[in-house]
Formats: sequence, C-alpha cells, structure tokens
Amino acid sequence: MFALTILGSNSAIPAFGRNPTAQILQTEDNSFLIDCGEGAQSQLARYKLRNNKLSHIFISHLHGDHYFGLIGLLTSMSLLSRTQELHVYGPTQLEQIINCQLEAGEVRLSYPIHFHSLTEEGMIACTNKIEISCIKMQHRIECWGFLFREKKNPRSVEPEKAKAFEIPLSYYEQLKKGEDYITKSGTVIPNHEVTSPNAPPRTYAYCADTLYNESVVEKIKGIDLLYHETTYLKDQPQKAMDRYHSTTVQAANIAKLAGVKQLIIGHFSSKYENLDAFLTETKEVFENTSLAIEGSCYKI
Amino acid sequence: MFALTILGSNSAIPAFGRNPTAQILQTEDNSFLIDCGEGAQSQLARYKLRNNKLSHIFISHLHGDHYFGLIGLLTSMSLLSRTQELHVYGPTQLEQIINCQLEAGEVRLSYPIHFHSLTEEGMIACTNKIEISCIKMQHRIECWGFLFREKKNPRSVEPEKAKAFEIPLSYYEQLKKGEDYITKSGTVIPNHEVTSPNAPPRTYAYCADTLYNESVVEKIKGIDLLYHETTYLKDQPQKAMDRYHSTTVQAANIAKLAGVKQLIIGHFSSKYENLDAFLTETKEVFENTSLAIEGSCYKI
Repeated sequence: MFALTILGSNSAIPAFGRNPTAQILQTEDNSFLIDCGEGAQSQLARYKLRNNKLSHIFISHLHGDHYFGLIGLLTSMSLLSRTQELHVYGPTQLEQIINCQLEAGEVRLSYPIHFHSLTEEGMIACTNKIEISCIKMQHRIECWGFLFREKKNPRSVEPEKAKAFEIPLSYYEQLKKGEDYITKSGTVIPNHEVTSPNAPPRTYAYCADTLYNESVVEKIKGIDLLYHETTYLKDQPQKAMDRYHSTTVQAANIAKLAGVKQLIIGHFSSKYENLDAFLTETKEVFENTSLAIEGSCYKI
Repeated sequence: MFALTILGSNSAIPAFGRNPTAQILQTEDNSFLIDCGEGAQSQLARYKLRNNKLSHIFISHLHGDHYFGLIGLLTSMSLLSRTQELHVYGPTQLEQIINCQLEAGEVRLSYPIHFHSLTEEGMIACTNKIEISCIKMQHRIECWGFLFREKKNPRSVEPEKAKAFEIPLSYYEQLKKGEDYITKSGTVIPNHEVTSPNAPPRTYAYCADTLYNESVVEKIKGIDLLYHETTYLKDQPQKAMDRYHSTTVQAANIAKLAGVKQLIIGHFSSKYENLDAFLTETKEVFENTSLAIEGSCYKI
C-alpha cells in the first residue's frame, strides 16, 4: 500500500468547506502525516484514518495553516493513551512551540516524542520500507518539501524455482539482493534463474509552500506522484511571486520538467470558491493532474 | 441584546460532532469570546457570527480544549485585515504561547492586541455597557470563570414627561443617574416624576473547568444565566473529583444554591455519545436547565 489521502487543501484561512493543509501517506507498516493544519485531528477521524500506524509527522514550515492542528493531535493521542513513539520533523522552533504548550497545561504525553530539526537537504528518516528526504522550498520563511521513496528489494524470489534448485530459505534474503547461489557441489545458479525484477520503488513528493523554483526539478525527477501548491490561477504570477507562492501553470511546468507521472494541486487561495479553473489551467500544461480535495485518496 | 451562542461543548477530544469548548456572548456593542478550542474560527463562520464586534477574548485555562483554536483565530483575523484592537485575557503564559507562534511564522498582526494576565479575582474589563469579572475555579491547573454583568442606567427617562417640565436634553444623563431637576425658578422636579426604573442588569457566568466548589455560590448569586461544566454523570463523583471536574448533580446544586434563573451544562466527556441523561439528571435538581449544544443561542 502506498496511498495519499488529502485532509485539507486550502491556504491561510479555512473557507468553502476546505480545511488548512494536511495529508497522510499510508503504507503497509506506517502512516506519515504531512503538515497538520487546524482541525487535522477531526479530519483524520472523519475519514476513519486511525492513528495507530502514525509514526512520523513532517511539518513543512511554521505558517499556521500548516501546523496549528499539531498540538491538538499530539495531546489528543495522549488522552487516548497512545504508547508508541512518534517522530516529528520540522523547523527548529517547532519543538519549543509544542513544549511550551505542554508545559502550560502541565501535560505529560503518554508516549515518547522525538523532535528532529530540519537544517539541510537530504535523508531525514528511514523505516523498514520507506526513505524520507527533505528538499528546500523557496518561501517567505524557512520551508521544506518532502520526498518519500519506497525501498525495494531489487529482486523477488520465485519460490517454485528456488525450491527446484534446493536453495535454503535462509538464503532468500541474499537472492533478493541479486546474489547468485552456489550449490554444495559448486554449481552456480545465476540469480536471474530464480528471481524476477521488482516493480520500481514508488515515490511521492510534497512541494509546498513555494514559489516557482526549477532547482527542485532534478530532485523529484520521474517520481510517481507530485503534490505541488497552486495558490493562484495563472493570471496572478506577480501576486504569487510577491507572496512566495505558485500558480497553476507554474506547478504544471515543474511537473512536466520533472517528468512526474501524476500531479496533485492544492493550497488554494481562499479568494477562489470554485476550483474548476485550477484544474483546467493546470491540465493545459500537464494532463494527468487532480485537485487536492478533502477526503480524496490517491493510490500508487 | 444579550445572547450566548455555544460554539463547542465537548471536553478534551472532539467527538460525536461536538467541538471543544468555545462560546460567544453578543451584546449590542461588543462580542465576547469565552474560551477558544480548536476549530472555533470555523464554528464562528459556520454560525455566521462575524468578528467585527469581537473586542474581548477570555481564556479560562491552558488545557488545549479551551484555547488551541486561539492562535488560528488571531492570525485569520489578521489575514482578513482586521484593524480594531483586541483584548485577550488569560493565564500569564498565554501571551508567550501566542507570541512564540507569531514570531516563528514572522507574522505581524494587522491589529493591536493587548494581553491581560489573570492574577486575582475581581473586575478585569469594562466596556460602555458591560463589566466583566473573573472568578477562581478549582481545577488541576490555574483556571478562571467569568462573570458578565450589564451596566444599566438606574432609570429610564420618560421623554413626554421630561418635556412637559421643560427639562433640557443635556440634563437627561443626570436624570438617568437618579438626580432630581431644579427649574430656573427653583422648583424641584423629583426624579421619579420623569423617569421609570429600568430592568435589572442582565448577567451571565461561565464556570469551567471546575470541581464542585460551593465558594463560587456567593459570587454568582441570583444571576440570569449560568454555564457550569458537567463532565460526568452523577454516578461518577469520584472520577469527577479526581480529575477536577463536576457531575450533573453538582452543577445543578451550584445553580440551586446560587438561585440562578437558568442553567446551561456542557463540557461533556467524550465517553458519552448520548447526552439525554445529562439533561435528565440535572433537571431533577434544577429544572430550568439546557444542554450546551453547538449552535444553540440563549437570549436573556
């Protein structure tokens, strides 16, 4: 499983039933929350997304529409007696902001929480199956994008064939890594005889908030799914630049230049009630585009 | 106008469509927000309660279900270009909690904000028509209740009668204060000849979060409307006491002892989906009771 669910898609102020930014990437073993605008805990409950696999939270930047829901989620999970540890990634000040609220309420969380300050681009977290890197965004304040890349065994063992060569189960991990097997009598069984190539690792990148920045293209080259902010329509490039945001066409250009497979756009300005033009404009440049609508789920 | 609207009635965690605590008291000139749980800004929008009269916000204590929505409301009002000054009352640490979030986001509010630390019981704010006092609650951490009392001119001028005695308009303010009028020829027109008594000032008290505490009774004696927390049903007095909360019967007892006219109960524990028993149990002791339901409005 590698599925992204949108919990909130609006910028700045909740409007027209759209919540501030939050989304969750679910894999078999873990859930990763990306940004956590006000009301994210209620959105998680609304879409029946349980927090028991939630292991990592990534906060892009410290504008409120991206993190004001974090303290509520953290304390609610404690009230619900969570015990699993939780990793939180974000700008350095985040830890102090959370801690001063916990201290003021004399709250001691029921679970261990580890804050990780984002300071430079590169890998920041790694689970059994997923590697997560951060990418610098260009926004008015320090801001980070996130790249999720599935780790894959390079080969899948074909059990029938491996059994036929009497390869012991204990050797399967080496087969997955591409190694040949040498029988007791010295015969080499070439790896490709008993394994098959795996599907390429699935990838997702979150790019918000940011102005149009082609330097990000290399870092997200060829990924499966890209979320890129589109705060404004294409007739507002100056406003977008002034406010360190992107337009529809700019997001589409990034997707096209990076050769991504699918684009999701969001972080819509509250001045737009209807979002049809966002989709139309973006699709003119990059066809495989969807709107980030609350509750929609994208499976790769 | 003296109208209380419930924006959130639940304790701790949002559940069963119930939001964390927030309510707004509207008068002709001002709106007063009392507590501001997560999502309060969306609730204000949902019930079409505009913020242009919102002049004062009162935060009872620093448990998240009573104030995690404050930073979002404050910053949203700034994004909407509010210019009127705002007064915020609460425990001392509140100012630092808000300021460190504004600083992290490099947000400069579009309007002046004045924080007032609550340190002792007594009058804390005063508008043209309303006086607001704070009352100590007994909770696990520092916690304040609030008493809103309408200032009333002691008398209403009866214009026809005042005109008949040729009392100048400029003297009406003194008439309202109960003073007699002396004509140029020295004749005394007794005040009661040209004025009539006014309705008594309207009053509202907010008592949450608190355990059962009879010392509050004297301070809210005879008020029109009392909101008292009832986190638990009457079969949980020990749990209520351990957690510094109240039961239905305890809230009803306070209302009865204080001789208030009407009681609203709220801050329901998330373990209760159905609230019928809250109403039944409270009414057994104090008949004129209502449940604090999101969106309900109580006019005095």
